[in-house]
Amino acid sequence: MTDNDRLAAQLEFVLEIDRLKQVVRQTYLTDRSRRENDAEHSWHVATMALVLGEYAAGPDVDLDHAVRLLLVHDLVEIDAGDTFVYDEAGRRDQAERERRAADRVFGLLPADQAAALRGLWEEYEARETPEARFAGALDRFQPILHNVRTKGAVWQAHGIRRDQVLAQNRHMAEGAPALWRVAERLIDDAVAQGYLAP
Amino acid sequence: MTDNDRLAAQLEFVLEIDRLKQVVRQTYLTDRSRRENDAEHSWHVATMALVLGEYAAGPDVDLDHAVRLLLVHDLVEIDAGDTFVYDEAGRRDQAERERRAADRVFGLLPADQAAALRGLWEEYEARETPEARFAGALDRFQPILHNVRTKGAVWQAHGIRRDQVLAQNRHMAEGAPALWRVAERLIDDAVAQGYLAP
Repeated sequence: MTDNDRLAAQLEFVLEIDRLKQVVRQTYLTDRSRRENDAEHSWHVATMALVLGEYAAGPDVDLDHAVRLLLVHDLVEIDAGDTFVYDEAGRRDQAERERRAADRVFGLLPADQAAALRGLWEEYEARETPEARFAGALDRFQPILHNVRTKGAVWQAHGIRRDQVLAQNRHMAEGAPALWRVAERLIDDAVAQGYLAP
Repeated sequence: MTDNDRLAAQLEFVLEIDRLKQVVRQTYLTDRSRRENDAEHSWHVATMALVLGEYAAGPDVDLDHAVRLLLVHDLVEIDAGDTFVYDEAGRRDQAERERRAADRVFGLLPADQAAALRGLWEEYEARETPEARFAGALDRFQPILHNVRTKGAVWQAHGIRRDQVLAQNRHMAEGAPALWRVAERLIDDAVAQGYLAP
C-alpha cells in the first residue's frame, strides 16, 4: 500500500463514518424535541468520561482509553442499526449483525488501523477491562439521565418496567458503582413519581 | 462542597451539554440531507484524530490530548452559537460572546473541573501547542471534506471564493501539513470542477 493509498483509505473511512449521524436511537434530547443519534450520543458519553472519571471502579483507569472506546463503540451501527436494549427479538441476532458490520466498516481502514479500531470495539463489547466497564457504565447512565429529565419519555413509550431497567443496567455497578447507586435512586424516584412502571 | 454537591454539579453539566446537539452548523452531512450539529461534528473530528494522528506536525503529539481538546472545543457555542468562518460581522464580537459562554457553561462544574475544561478550551483557541494546532487543523479539514463530497454545498450557498477558503484554512499547515496539501489539491479540484468560485 502506497502512502497515497493509505491516506485515501483513511479519508474514505472518515467520510463513511459520517453516516453514524443518521442512526437514530430511542433516547430523546433533554427537551424532548427529537431523538438523538449515535454520533451525538458517542460525543456525549465520551465527554462524560472526562467529567465523571473519578467514579470509575479501580485505581488505575485510563480515562483517555475509555474515551477512545466510547468514540468507536457504536460505529458498527452504521450497518447494524441501533438495537433497543429492551428489544429481545432484535438482540438475538445483534452480535452476528454487528460482527459483519465491523468487518466492513473497520475494513475500510489500512490493515494496522482496522485491527486497532476493531480491537477497541471488541474490548468495549467484552467488558473485561476497567476502561471498558467504565465506558459501558456511561453508555447506560446517559439514557437513564435523559429518561429522568424527560419524565420517562422512552420508558413510557415502550411500557418499560422497573425490573427491566434494573436488569439491563445493573452492569453499571461493575464499571462505576457510585453512578449505579445514583441510577438506582433515580429509578426508584421515577417509579414513585409514576413515570416508570413498578 | 460536599461529595453530593460535587456529583450534582457534574450531572447538571452533563445534562446541560446535551444542548450542543441543537447548535446547527453550516456543514451538510455527506448525503446533503441536512446540516450537522456541533455535537456530531465534535464526535467526528475527535474520531478523526484517532485515524489521522500520523499526519500531526511534530514528533510527540499526544493524540489523546488532542481528542480532549476536540471534545470540548465547541461547548461555548451552546450560548454563543456557531459563527460561520466566513461571517466577518459575526466574527467581530465572537471572542467576547464565547468568553461569556465559557464563564457560564464551564462554571457549572466544580471549580477544579471548571478550570481544567476551560483550560482545554483556551488551549484549543490559542493554537500554541502541537495538540491544539493538530485539533484546529482537523476542525477545518472536516468541513472541506464535506464540501467536496457535497459538490460545494456550503461554498455554493454563500458564494464563497477560493481565496477565502485558502485564507481561512491555511493554518491547517501548522498542525497537519500533509492534510493541508490534500486540502489545497481538493480546493483546486473544486475550482476546476466549477463548484468553488475562483
